Amino acid sequence: MNAKETAIVFIEFQNDFCKEGGALYGGTKEQIQAQGTVKNAADCIKKARGKCMTLLVPILFEQSYSDMGCAGVLGPIHNNVVNTKAFQKGTWGGAIVDELTPTAQDIVVDGKRTLDAFNSSNLDFMLRVNCIKNVAFCGFLTNVCVEGTARSAYDKGYKVFLLKDCCAALSAAEQAYVEKSFFPYIGEALTHTEFLGRLE
Amino acid sequence: MNAKETAIVFIEFQNDFCKEGGALYGGTKEQIQAQGTVKNAADCIKKARGKCMTLLVPILFEQSYSDMGCAGVLGPIHNNVVNTKAFQKGTWGGAIVDELTPTAQDIVVDGKRTLDAFNSSNLDFMLRVNCIKNVAFCGFLTNVCVEGTARSAYDKGYKVFLLKDCCAALSAAEQAYVEKSFFPYIGEALTHTEFLGRLE
Amino acid sequence: MNAKETAIVFIEFQNDFCKEGGALYGGTKEQIQAQGTVKNAADCIKKARGKCMTLLVPILFEQSYSDMGCAGVLGPIHNNVVNTKAFQKGTWGGAIVDELTPTAQDIVVDGKRTLDAFNSSNLDFMLRVNCIKNVAFCGFLTNVCVEGTARSAYDKGYKVFLLKDCCAALSAAEQAYVEKSFFPYIGEALTHTEFLGRLE
Amino acid sequence: MNAKETAIVFIEFQNDFCKEGGALYGGTKEQIQAQGTVKNAADCIKKARGKCMTLLVPILFEQSYSDMGCAGVLGPIHNNVVNTKAFQKGTWGGAIVDELTPTAQDIVVDGKRTLDAFNSSNLDFMLRVNCIKNVAFCGFLTNVCVEGTARSAYDKGYKVFLLKDCCAALSAAEQAYVEKSFFPYIGEALTHTEFLGRLE
Repeated sequence: MNAKETAIVFIEFQNDFCKEGGALYGGTKEQIQAQGTVKNAADCIKKARGKCMTLLVPILFEQSYSDMGCAGVLGPIHNNVVNTKAFQKGTWGGAIVDELTPTAQDIVVDGKRTLDAFNSSNLDFMLRVNCIKNVAFCGFLTNVCVEGTARSAYDKGYKVFLLKDCCAALSAAEQAYVEKSFFPYIGEALTHTEFLGRLE
Repeated sequence: MNAKETAIVFIEFQNDFCKEGGALYGGTKEQIQAQGTVKNAADCIKKARGKCMTLLVPILFEQSYSDMGCAGVLGPIHNNVVNTKAFQKGTWGGAIVDELTPTAQDIVVDGKRTLDAFNSSNLDFMLRVNCIKNVAFCGFLTNVCVEGTARSAYDKGYKVFLLKDCCAALSAAEQAYVEKSFFPYIGEALTHTEFLGRLE
Repeated sequence: MNAKETAIVFIEFQNDFCKEGGALYGGTKEQIQAQGTVKNAADCIKKARGKCMTLLVPILFEQSYSDMGCAGVLGPIHNNVVNTKAFQKGTWGGAIVDELTPTAQDIVVDGKRTLDAFNSSNLDFMLRVNCIKNVAFCGFLTNVCVEGTARSAYDKGYKVFLLKDCCAALSAAEQAYVEKSFFPYIGEALTHTEFLGRLE
Repeated sequence: MNAKETAIVFIEFQNDFCKEGGALYGGTKEQIQAQGTVKNAADCIKKARGKCMTLLVPILFEQSYSDMGCAGVLGPIHNNVVNTKAFQKGTWGGAIVDELTPTAQDIVVDGKRTLDAFNSSNLDFMLRVNCIKNVAFCGFLTNVCVEGTARSAYDKGYKVFLLKDCCAALSAAEQAYVEKSFFPYIGEALTHTEFLGRLE
């Protein structure tokens, strides 16, 4: 795999998902600890910088959630964001975790408001103009935004990979479902060490 | 739910998925029989026509698969289509099943080549210009194209529903995963009779 | 320019635009005759087949225009299609002109309902999975659908070209505006002979 | 026109386009002064706030232009951005002009890197989830990004308007071409006072 044609996309490594006190950490804590998600992702981005393209994609809303639209348009998962006051711009909860603080070598992708990180952002533009063919995904939740973004990437003609030790779902069963039942339809699930070992 | 603002999308009700002799029927047969998928979908479209918008979305490729692109670009699920000679234009296998033959009241959506039925088609155009707000999805496979299209619809701001008795996956476990673990993030899973009962 | 990474997109070479008796030929006739549009495009596709990718993109609606949506959603240019009964599926007017009848070497792109040929079709999918980097556009109208599709291609990261002798607008002034004022922002306008001469 | 279903999109009101010392002001100065572009847009946003949705869409790149991709992928208009050092994040030139500084009533749309403001941003998401049907566009350049974004909006099913006195092109001829030759295909060109007068 040509490193120049390869990107790793880190989805929603924000305090609200990853840290004690984060709005949604109650749900993710168990799997983050079981998998070593943040530690593995930090190791991955550190080793990947300068070799392949590294992108961070936070999800962020206005503090008033005025960008959620008319009452009742968006559904369950967005309602949960509002109810838990998660992912607000300019707050600690919305900030990217210290372990993955972006450097000048990373691209921070703007605009994500929905499950698929391509849907309302410049992620596809960034990958296309950088001549990327292979994309690995990791982050939160494995079976929601991570899987959804990988599905969209597959449909756009990218070779897709899941960095399984850099993800977390709400349960081990959901994590296993993505790794073993769904992902083989579209690509390959492997550890970040295995993935980085293939870069040339 | 206002019937004028509602659509039902029938995904890949083609002989290759639904009928003895179809290229992929070996995988779907058990769940189609267990769920009554085709019989239920036929009942659903018959009762829905003239009340709400009804759309059929087949997936179709050139017989040469020349529209699959360069060698190696597309991944596992497309390779399986080629290997099994499924979904070829102008063949029995690619045709929509007799039970759901389109009438003048239905829209047949052109262009689907990927998992998400929005990605390479005019499905979003059709829904937008018809002022649709609520969309129910059914067809094949529950956890691949049906779920993927529903995810994309959610991200586009539609209210989404899964007609669970008009779908099939390759196993009861995958069907149950979509109904119970994933779909509650984005919408509601119900039977076609329950859904039609809500139309006004 | 590597021919294997190059495509030519022929937009709306349908009888309604190109032939005596066509619904919109009253507007295009003068410029088609002045430019030799159809003759040049026929020469171009004949010489291009087997060298680079060739795609035909018709615009087609149901005969009832039921796929135009709710009253009042679409605007002036779609209203004109309805009023002139243009581009109906299954009619002579909607058919591709004899001079450019698709062969097995061409791809016919399904789904176009709007100005930008990418917007409601699988055109981007076809180009991406075929590893295309350079795309030349021609057809009708130079300053409406042809320019709009070229704009969209530019934004998607393709190198874009206008085959100026294979286009027509409603007036020489509009044709000249696209060639000289607008196109230099995004690419290069040249004749089909010049373009084909660059393919390797 | 229902004000709750209406939005005004202000494209690239940044110092680089609008102010003495801006990277591209040499080209736009004459038309900005002739039209009163910035003064009119400031009047428009002031009167529109609280009545209809107001969105500002800057175009911004990393100071290194690392988000421009591989050498040679992007074309003439992006090369000009690099050559003139325009639209850099965190600089005076990239900042929105003082007259249109966003307030809490505005939405600032993230992600624009290309001509069409929908292409690499969350603009469509913002409009959809806010139930917007009518969209007016203004800004820079009239015949490049403003027209391109209006084209894309038309194709997405929005009613589109051009606020002609809140735009500027590089010449009066190009401004007149958009107002009189192109825009009637897709919508209506009018002054901001005329447009605001229609809001109910």
